Amino acid sequence: MKSQIQKAEGRLGILTPGMGAVATTFMAGVIAINKGLAKPIGSVSQMGNIRLGKRTENRMPLIKDFVPLANLKDIVFGGWDLYDDNVYQAAAHAKVLEPAMLEAIRPELEAIKPMKAVFDRTFVKNLDGTYVKTAATKWDLAKQVMDDIENFKDLHDLNRVVLVWCGSTEIYFEASEVHETVESFEAGLKNNDPNIAPSMIYAYAALKLGVPFANGAPNLTCDIPALVELSKQTGTPIAGKDFKTGQTLMKTILAPGLQARALGVDGWFSTNILGNRDGWVLDDPDNFKTKEVSKLGVLEDIFKPDTNPDLYGDIYHKVRINYYPPHGDNKESWDNIDIFGWMGYKMQIKVNFLCRDSILAAPIVLDLALFCDLAKRAGMSGIQEWLSFYLKSPQTAPGLRPEHDIFKQLIKLQNTLRHMMGEDLITHLGLDYYQDLVEAIS
Amino acid sequence: MKSQIQKAEGRLGILTPGMGAVATTFMAGVIAINKGLAKPIGSVSQMGNIRLGKRTENRMPLIKDFVPLANLKDIVFGGWDLYDDNVYQAAAHAKVLEPAMLEAIRPELEAIKPMKAVFDRTFVKNLDGTYVKTAATKWDLAKQVMDDIENFKDLHDLNRVVLVWCGSTEIYFEASEVHETVESFEAGLKNNDPNIAPSMIYAYAALKLGVPFANGAPNLTCDIPALVELSKQTGTPIAGKDFKTGQTLMKTILAPGLQARALGVDGWFSTNILGNRDGWVLDDPDNFKTKEVSKLGVLEDIFKPDTNPDLYGDIYHKVRINYYPPHGDNKESWDNIDIFGWMGYKMQIKVNFLCRDSILAAPIVLDLALFCDLAKRAGMSGIQEWLSFYLKSPQTAPGLRPEHDIFKQLIKLQNTLRHMMGEDLITHLGLDYYQDLVEAIS
Amino acid sequence: MKSQIQKAEGRLGILTPGMGAVATTFMAGVIAINKGLAKPIGSVSQMGNIRLGKRTENRMPLIKDFVPLANLKDIVFGGWDLYDDNVYQAAAHAKVLEPAMLEAIRPELEAIKPMKAVFDRTFVKNLDGTYVKTAATKWDLAKQVMDDIENFKDLHDLNRVVLVWCGSTEIYFEASEVHETVESFEAGLKNNDPNIAPSMIYAYAALKLGVPFANGAPNLTCDIPALVELSKQTGTPIAGKDFKTGQTLMKTILAPGLQARALGVDGWFSTNILGNRDGWVLDDPDNFKTKEVSKLGVLEDIFKPDTNPDLYGDIYHKVRINYYPPHGDNKESWDNIDIFGWMGYKMQIKVNFLCRDSILAAPIVLDLALFCDLAKRAGMSGIQEWLSFYLKSPQTAPGLRPEHDIFKQLIKLQNTLRHMMGEDLITHLGLDYYQDLVEAIS
Amino acid sequence: MKSQIQKAEGRLGILTPGMGAVATTFMAGVIAINKGLAKPIGSVSQMGNIRLGKRTENRMPLIKDFVPLANLKDIVFGGWDLYDDNVYQAAAHAKVLEPAMLEAIRPELEAIKPMKAVFDRTFVKNLDGTYVKTAATKWDLAKQVMDDIENFKDLHDLNRVVLVWCGSTEIYFEASEVHETVESFEAGLKNNDPNIAPSMIYAYAALKLGVPFANGAPNLTCDIPALVELSKQTGTPIAGKDFKTGQTLMKTILAPGLQARALGVDGWFSTNILGNRDGWVLDDPDNFKTKEVSKLGVLEDIFKPDTNPDLYGDIYHKVRINYYPPHGDNKESWDNIDIFGWMGYKMQIKVNFLCRDSILAAPIVLDLALFCDLAKRAGMSGIQEWLSFYLKSPQTAPGLRPEHDIFKQLIKLQNTLRHMMGEDLITHLGLDYYQDLVEAIS
Repeated sequence: MKSQIQKAEGRLGILTPGMGAVATTFMAGVIAINKGLAKPIGSVSQMGNIRLGKRTENRMPLIKDFVPLANLKDIVFGGWDLYDDNVYQAAAHAKVLEPAMLEAIRPELEAIKPMKAVFDRTFVKNLDGTYVKTAATKWDLAKQVMDDIENFKDLHDLNRVVLVWCGSTEIYFEASEVHETVESFEAGLKNNDPNIAPSMIYAYAALKLGVPFANGAPNLTCDIPALVELSKQTGTPIAGKDFKTGQTLMKTILAPGLQARALGVDGWFSTNILGNRDGWVLDDPDNFKTKEVSKLGVLEDIFKPDTNPDLYGDIYHKVRINYYPPHGDNKESWDNIDIFGWMGYKMQIKVNFLCRDSILAAPIVLDLALFCDLAKRAGMSGIQEWLSFYLKSPQTAPGLRPEHDIFKQLIKLQNTLRHMMGEDLITHLGLDYYQDLVEAIS
Repeated sequence: MKSQIQKAEGRLGILTPGMGAVATTFMAGVIAINKGLAKPIGSVSQMGNIRLGKRTENRMPLIKDFVPLANLKDIVFGGWDLYDDNVYQAAAHAKVLEPAMLEAIRPELEAIKPMKAVFDRTFVKNLDGTYVKTAATKWDLAKQVMDDIENFKDLHDLNRVVLVWCGSTEIYFEASEVHETVESFEAGLKNNDPNIAPSMIYAYAALKLGVPFANGAPNLTCDIPALVELSKQTGTPIAGKDFKTGQTLMKTILAPGLQARALGVDGWFSTNILGNRDGWVLDDPDNFKTKEVSKLGVLEDIFKPDTNPDLYGDIYHKVRINYYPPHGDNKESWDNIDIFGWMGYKMQIKVNFLCRDSILAAPIVLDLALFCDLAKRAGMSGIQEWLSFYLKSPQTAPGLRPEHDIFKQLIKLQNTLRHMMGEDLITHLGLDYYQDLVEAIS
Repeated sequence: MKSQIQKAEGRLGILTPGMGAVATTFMAGVIAINKGLAKPIGSVSQMGNIRLGKRTENRMPLIKDFVPLANLKDIVFGGWDLYDDNVYQAAAHAKVLEPAMLEAIRPELEAIKPMKAVFDRTFVKNLDGTYVKTAATKWDLAKQVMDDIENFKDLHDLNRVVLVWCGSTEIYFEASEVHETVESFEAGLKNNDPNIAPSMIYAYAALKLGVPFANGAPNLTCDIPALVELSKQTGTPIAGKDFKTGQTLMKTILAPGLQARALGVDGWFSTNILGNRDGWVLDDPDNFKTKEVSKLGVLEDIFKPDTNPDLYGDIYHKVRINYYPPHGDNKESWDNIDIFGWMGYKMQIKVNFLCRDSILAAPIVLDLALFCDLAKRAGMSGIQEWLSFYLKSPQTAPGLRPEHDIFKQLIKLQNTLRHMMGEDLITHLGLDYYQDLVEAIS
Repeated sequence: MKSQIQKAEGRLGILTPGMGAVATTFMAGVIAINKGLAKPIGSVSQMGNIRLGKRTENRMPLIKDFVPLANLKDIVFGGWDLYDDNVYQAAAHAKVLEPAMLEAIRPELEAIKPMKAVFDRTFVKNLDGTYVKTAATKWDLAKQVMDDIENFKDLHDLNRVVLVWCGSTEIYFEASEVHETVESFEAGLKNNDPNIAPSMIYAYAALKLGVPFANGAPNLTCDIPALVELSKQTGTPIAGKDFKTGQTLMKTILAPGLQARALGVDGWFSTNILGNRDGWVLDDPDNFKTKEVSKLGVLEDIFKPDTNPDLYGDIYHKVRINYYPPHGDNKESWDNIDIFGWMGYKMQIKVNFLCRDSILAAPIVLDLALFCDLAKRAGMSGIQEWLSFYLKSPQTAPGLRPEHDIFKQLIKLQNTLRHMMGEDLITHLGLDYYQDLVEAIS
């Protein structure tokens, strides 16, 4: 397989629907990194090592030196937004990065200007924008997005393009008939079906062109049969949904740890305070619903109450998000976890995470874009479950329950890379280090 | 191999040098469980499931139903202590378990009485006991312990015996010449070499008789060439060292999570307050040194600063233990973790663990005893690295760095069990769930 | 004045409308204290000292030895509830006190049985009771309560009676015309005015009989002109409203401290988790509204944003209560306080209070009852502002802003007691300890 | 008295022995404030209000508008240090203030250069400086300091001078014979008595010249009979010792709150992590001892275990300071407080204060300087107990126990100011707001 992967030649365009705090932090970061002003901390593709072979071989290359990823210097940025601020203005407004850093890369940021967004306030009640596309039908809007992508590709002389959704969370709704097949979906686009959300229009446009699409929000978007089908037809990778940052990241680290030790859990209370645009959007109950569903499923999957009723049959799990302006983008979470051990004795764990939402999300945008591009070049189409590692609510094949345990997700990602490159998979068995033992049990 | 494992027939004796809070909580728990008064929460061998086969097969048996472990009803308890309290008295003194529970199993607890301990105050300054063996040489003390074990086995008509060290932490010292070979060690026993600690005498006695030995404290004990050699000679499993509970448990859960995401770490400050006998022993700087070395190594191994200097090259790691009587056995830890992400931006994580020391340690005693017994019956001798999962400072083959990441340790444990029973090892690759994808990359 | 205070002779009845967790914990506690099984920790009247005279005099008597309070041995308990459980059953159900303690005083608790409650589900949506009074009009209900009080007094041969509201929080509404005068209120009782809540019927009944009334919930109850007028007419003390426990207690300790040092505050986020009946009632938005108003006012008063706009002009204050069954009565609060100091530099304070709601409230019931009884005997009628110390939302004279700073409240309480007993008020000036200094500035 | 206070005419020199993080933050702040770049948050003298008259009068002037303080524009800065960095360099090194702010006032900061320090490494083991005075005797060193002060005064045409010790904590020792009288002390200076610390030499020099002296560290310094006597002889105010910031500030806020409510305390564990020069000095056990004594006394005084043995007789109080470089000047504290309430039930409070040491200390330097200058002009000499409010370990008249409760300290400070200016003292009695009540009890 290794020999079949196309090289990462030429330039790669990364386009983000939504150019707020996350997208601008991502773009500013890559630019600063290319100028030697910062490092891509938090990016597993750039900073992460991967063990190859036996423990005693000490082969631990960086992932970027192991698999053929696009070079950061070859990336060109673009996107869509419902405000016409350029990236410098949007980043300054988001207040994630320090002014001195923004000044140092101001010309590059000012040069990145959004294209007009596909926007429908029905799906995001607390926002309102004026820089939006108009058209008679959703089909026409999809065509406009396709034109945007192709024009952008021509304009910047790109070899390949990837889309990563960095927009706000849309309101909660479930998949229905219009989302069943490519045919029904295209009919829906043409007759303005109210169940087709703006994010779906972007995803459709990308997949139709064979452009990989990753979804950083908990909206359905490409997690519908119609778009999975389309992705296979056009040989395009998709990945979703919802960037795994902050509290849920912490939850998918801690929960597997408790479960590993067969410690029981009575209750898990999670609260968040944040004051950015995301917090404001999620202050609306319909939009929070979408997020809540994404956040609540995590423990259910990891603990599997049905399999382990004595330990996890009665978990009371509650998640709250509170809009709290004093913290801006510095999302803070507080978790209270009620556990019980030997003979049922109770213990408590409190975790207070003073995090920065966009700082945790930005490297995920980069990694998803680079790995989706790699998958495309490797001929892998449809759902990329090995990218679950980055996502709160991983999209999987029908009938397959998602895996939320971040450590299993990591092994899946790493073993997929090893498999691609023809290296042995790692099982951590390691009995061969103990010769005599091996003789005994083989 | 599966067919070669001897069945777990007859009764298993579990003897603990040290019958304080941990050992008595372990014994009282098993007795209560056998009477239907409690459940073995926190015991992976009893409550943990293991996935077999593909994710879609839904095969998730309990480990105890998968591998041939001794039945809890067949366990007989005994041990040594420097106070002559029976287990009821010692448990009441430790104040870990509620009085009502102790009353409900009082006769069974009162029936368990310690044998006289091998004790030398040079190694544990803050304790003093009167219920101790006397002899001209350490060799004679070892003989007495061997007699104790054999008498206990006869008295209770046991099929097999296991020893688990549950005593206090001995003072810090490093391995020297006397610890090099079985020959030099036996000579040392005979001439009362000051570098042979009491815990080593127990370990020697056990291994000489082919009785498995696990070490729950950070002392060297069986982590010396002489005793590793002896364990191979007599075909006996050994496991050590230091039960992984509380703060270090949490650390080996969180650190792999941060590393998985390539998040950098500047500093990790860990403090503990506890008021039990363990806290009092560790209030002495020499004894704390042993514990500190055990606790500090954890991050070094997981983060591998040499491999990842940009992320982990400058970690400032500090661990403090404070004797604080108001909390008794309810050890509480507080961690401050300084991390950095994308472009170097700083974040903080605070973890406050209101734990119960002995409640977390008791099921480890059980699991180590049962798995060592299993290993013995499977013909596995020497260091059992697959039991690292339970240990703060795992003993490994010479030249092999220990693995502290609890999730890698768990896979190692589970894949070892799968290997023993002839099941496929799990790699989490899972590409076969995605047919078209498989075709593309195979 | 001291000589005019009537002695505390004979028996005192304390009747609580509402006999749930708080009331039963209070009653069980006093009974246990009288039997020598417990101490009245948290009761300022019983355990608090009061400094008299100069610092060098070392006069620090207990308050109960300084002012003529009723003796705990002379208290008789009773009350009303919408369930017919006796106090033993209700306390067992509340799970606040340990079973062993309840058993030790079981006969005394079983002997206390509720009278039928005045209840109207319009005011407490999440509850429903069957043990309730029926009558054609609210006037008739008030008559029934008066009969209950007088019968109880006769039956137990009481010298005096006090009522303390320990019922649930009623829904939010503001005072209107019917609450203006005694006349309009009595007319409203007769024509079943919907703005007269059950708690007001109890308060009316008590005050009409000259029985002191204290209100432990945030409902209006006696904080309306009509009942203030009535309390003066009948020479009866009133005190309200809302027992100051848990998070608000902590807030009125910390906020004055920050203000003392002229430290600015940007935001204060407060969240609570609790799983008792109170939590369940407050899960309803209308009932939470009443509580929220009571909780939010606290910071406004202490910080006085108008007087100090540079420091407190932009506080974002948010309070959340979350029903979380795993914690039962063990209410836990978490506060994040964003402060700023010299030159505007930001700092943060996090407070995690693992409290027990009823344990904090019970001694307040006792103190309010004893001090209201003292006030009655001292001839003090109407609003007792000196009891603000115990209350989240103190009732004051019209036009007088309430004082929430717990330290000013304490001085007010103590100086009122000193004034009653003819002792010098304390000003903490203390220049006289420094002779030469006094000469200089006098 | 009001008429006797001399006006604050002309310029005031504030000299600090020690020009590290605290002193430079203080100086930079005042300069920035005078240029309109920042506000004196945390300074009670500048930002604090004082209530005058009855609550209904709404008289709440700023303290600086109420008493005749020196104007910030009239302050001139100077000091001594053992490194010859100017204030810009020292502030940049301390990393407390942001670079952009330091640049904005760079010329003013560069103009402030230290004079050579009196330094003796015996008293501060972890520091070493080269910019130090040399002389045959301590008497000569004192003369040099006096010359420094007078030259500085002449050079800058000052009307008055104040000294505030901002140097490191000296090692622990207790007062002895040489500290008894002015005579013995001067003899000691002349014969180089080893019990005379550098800080005492500064204090002697200041007091001899009639210059007020405040001590921000826990060293004895002017808390010895000889210097108290000298301060009275020369009519000079003194105040000490140890700026009350961070954890102790929080402790003297919380402890009075718990005591107010008669809640018991079993244990109080306090730990700190900090990485500045102060942290490094306190890493030496002898220097930590001085700090520990200062920190431990606080609870003893507030809770008075002798008066309240049931509540506070068994407090286990432990304070730890850990040098932790990643945090720099951002000192962080974590407290665990074990309390008990009604019937002895246990609760816990955890406080995590993410503070900034120098940001909290800087306004205290300002206030102590301004109030000492006021006291001097008001003719108040010797110990100024009303400034205890700012100090961890207040100096008092012999035989008078210090008051640590910050709220009593605040009333003392405010009532002293009211007394100076001829206003009524505040007692918070307030019965007069309730007319009928007043009639009843007067």
